[in-house]
Amino acid sequence: MIIDCHGHYTTAPAAHSDWREAQLAAWEAGEAPPPYPVISDDEIRESIEANQLRLIRERGADVTIFSPRASAMGHHLGDLGTSEAWTAACNDLIARVVDLFPGTFIGVAQLPQAAGEGLDAAIRELDRRVAEGFVGVNLNPDPSGGHWTSPPLTDRYWYPIYERMVEHDVPAMIHVSASANPAFHATGAHYMNADTTAFMQLLQGDLFADFPTLRLVIPHGGGAVPYHWGRYRGLADMLKKPALDSHVMGNVFFDTCVYHQPGIDLLTDVIPAENILFGSEMVGAVRGIDPTTGHYFDDTLRYVETAALSAEDREAILSGNAMRVYPRLAAALSRQSARS
Amino acid sequence: MIIDCHGHYTTAPAAHSDWREAQLAAWEAGEAPPPYPVISDDEIRESIEANQLRLIRERGADVTIFSPRASAMGHHLGDLGTSEAWTAACNDLIARVVDLFPGTFIGVAQLPQAAGEGLDAAIRELDRRVAEGFVGVNLNPDPSGGHWTSPPLTDRYWYPIYERMVEHDVPAMIHVSASANPAFHATGAHYMNADTTAFMQLLQGDLFADFPTLRLVIPHGGGAVPYHWGRYRGLADMLKKPALDSHVMGNVFFDTCVYHQPGIDLLTDVIPAENILFGSEMVGAVRGIDPTTGHYFDDTLRYVETAALSAEDREAILSGNAMRVYPRLAAALSRQSARS
Repeated sequence: MIIDCHGHYTTAPAAHSDWREAQLAAWEAGEAPPPYPVISDDEIRESIEANQLRLIRERGADVTIFSPRASAMGHHLGDLGTSEAWTAACNDLIARVVDLFPGTFIGVAQLPQAAGEGLDAAIRELDRRVAEGFVGVNLNPDPSGGHWTSPPLTDRYWYPIYERMVEHDVPAMIHVSASANPAFHATGAHYMNADTTAFMQLLQGDLFADFPTLRLVIPHGGGAVPYHWGRYRGLADMLKKPALDSHVMGNVFFDTCVYHQPGIDLLTDVIPAENILFGSEMVGAVRGIDPTTGHYFDDTLRYVETAALSAEDREAILSGNAMRVYPRLAAALSRQSARS
Repeated sequence: MIIDCHGHYTTAPAAHSDWREAQLAAWEAGEAPPPYPVISDDEIRESIEANQLRLIRERGADVTIFSPRASAMGHHLGDLGTSEAWTAACNDLIARVVDLFPGTFIGVAQLPQAAGEGLDAAIRELDRRVAEGFVGVNLNPDPSGGHWTSPPLTDRYWYPIYERMVEHDVPAMIHVSASANPAFHATGAHYMNADTTAFMQLLQGDLFADFPTLRLVIPHGGGAVPYHWGRYRGLADMLKKPALDSHVMGNVFFDTCVYHQPGIDLLTDVIPAENILFGSEMVGAVRGIDPTTGHYFDDTLRYVETAALSAEDREAILSGNAMRVYPRLAAALSRQSARS
């Protein structure tokens, strides 16, 4: 079984994103938002079958851990109240996709966040979605959208959500949303920077001394980190931290959203296989075909299959590690297979 | 001849940085700064001989393109006036190092910058230092120190300095300073993020259509870029830009400040040799010894020498490209050798 840990519902029906625009316009005008539109099961089915499901079948994955479109989380837009309502709508759609395609999609929840606000609403959403069968969350380390006004991930500000994640035994993917800062292109700079920044925050702190069972997935192959693994090993030494394997790598995982063979080769060469989860970010950031290979840039399964890995390590990356990092996945899949 | 394109005077005598502190305290208090201290040639000699020169000799480089300590540029501290005075002091020290060690160090200038201010002072400093024999400048894309309030490098805000750089035929290294944002560790996050961000800004824009002979060096191996080269090629395609080789890689160069063999192997595998300049950032960000190799993390010459490169490509990376990217280097070296 091949598990893609990083899929987004980037193809949701237009009525969904139209409502978001109307909601924000209403908030801006100090009015109540319009009612959320009726979206039929058929519309959802079509939006998935023509896109993610077609590509999953063509490429050969079995299960996708699926969350709302990251760039549309937009924690910097509106306020915490608009974020709560939008988040509920986004996660409801994910729940419907999971129901419509049992055994193929498993839910990961967006969280309602807003810079400068507490995490109570996020914890309520986490509780609700775990009860519905979601197996993880996406946590935005910069809800300001590129202004980086929130404290580092090691700050006590974040502890309440970590406590509840540990209680539910669910991991978080550390994932920013769109950039409201003209310096940062979203998928070309802000995403990469956030991954690098998050890792360095964890290196500087001692978060996992307080939360030894907390698990965080850093997407996009860990940003710049594996390429600069020597720098990070050296910085841990300079900052008088333990070696990275004991200091952070018991709790931190990188996905394989690196869109060429040399990148995946470096990732799998440098980072222990137990810390790597197969992911494609599909249908996502880069949708074209690589003219040098004739294959889609984001067909990361090809790269993982070509990388010099033992059968055991490849199985861990493609499946075993996801089952370990998302312990609720096995139960969710068996509930679904009983239903389907 | 081996040319290290990226060395900083991180070991300047304490009186120099003490003055900076006094200068900023005076500015804060609304008073005049104290006079700059007398620093003897012997003090400068010692600070170099015990550090950079010792390591250069041990490791086997010949010439270092040398600039003031990047983390101490501190464009976010004080105002443009304090930055001008501090920059003059820093560049004066570099000029003295160059004079004391002819043929070994060649100057690159820090620029006076402040977020929200124009670039006239930077252009005056550029003119002055080029006249003194400096061969390039360090340009800070984020003088706010991690708040990223300046327009992208492709914005017309930056054009006056580019125009003068082209006139003088000198390149800029795009290099941030310390981080005033607690989200970003300086050398572990802010530096990497700035490199990635700068490259993506150049990809999004069309700067080199306006400045076909402008040359920019992106340090630290290009941040996350070579590791994610497939993503960037794919983004160029999605943004309807020309392929990267014609769109940016005629004008952009990465150094080799990547502190482990697999990173340098990826860099030299993915990026054309003509776009790579040997650099070590020495004595700099990471000063320890890698326990897995027994060698200094920042002894990047070892990695370049081990990488699978043709003799011609290795020579280009170690020497030829620097002569091409810094056209004033040859004349500066021959003036110095006539003197020494």
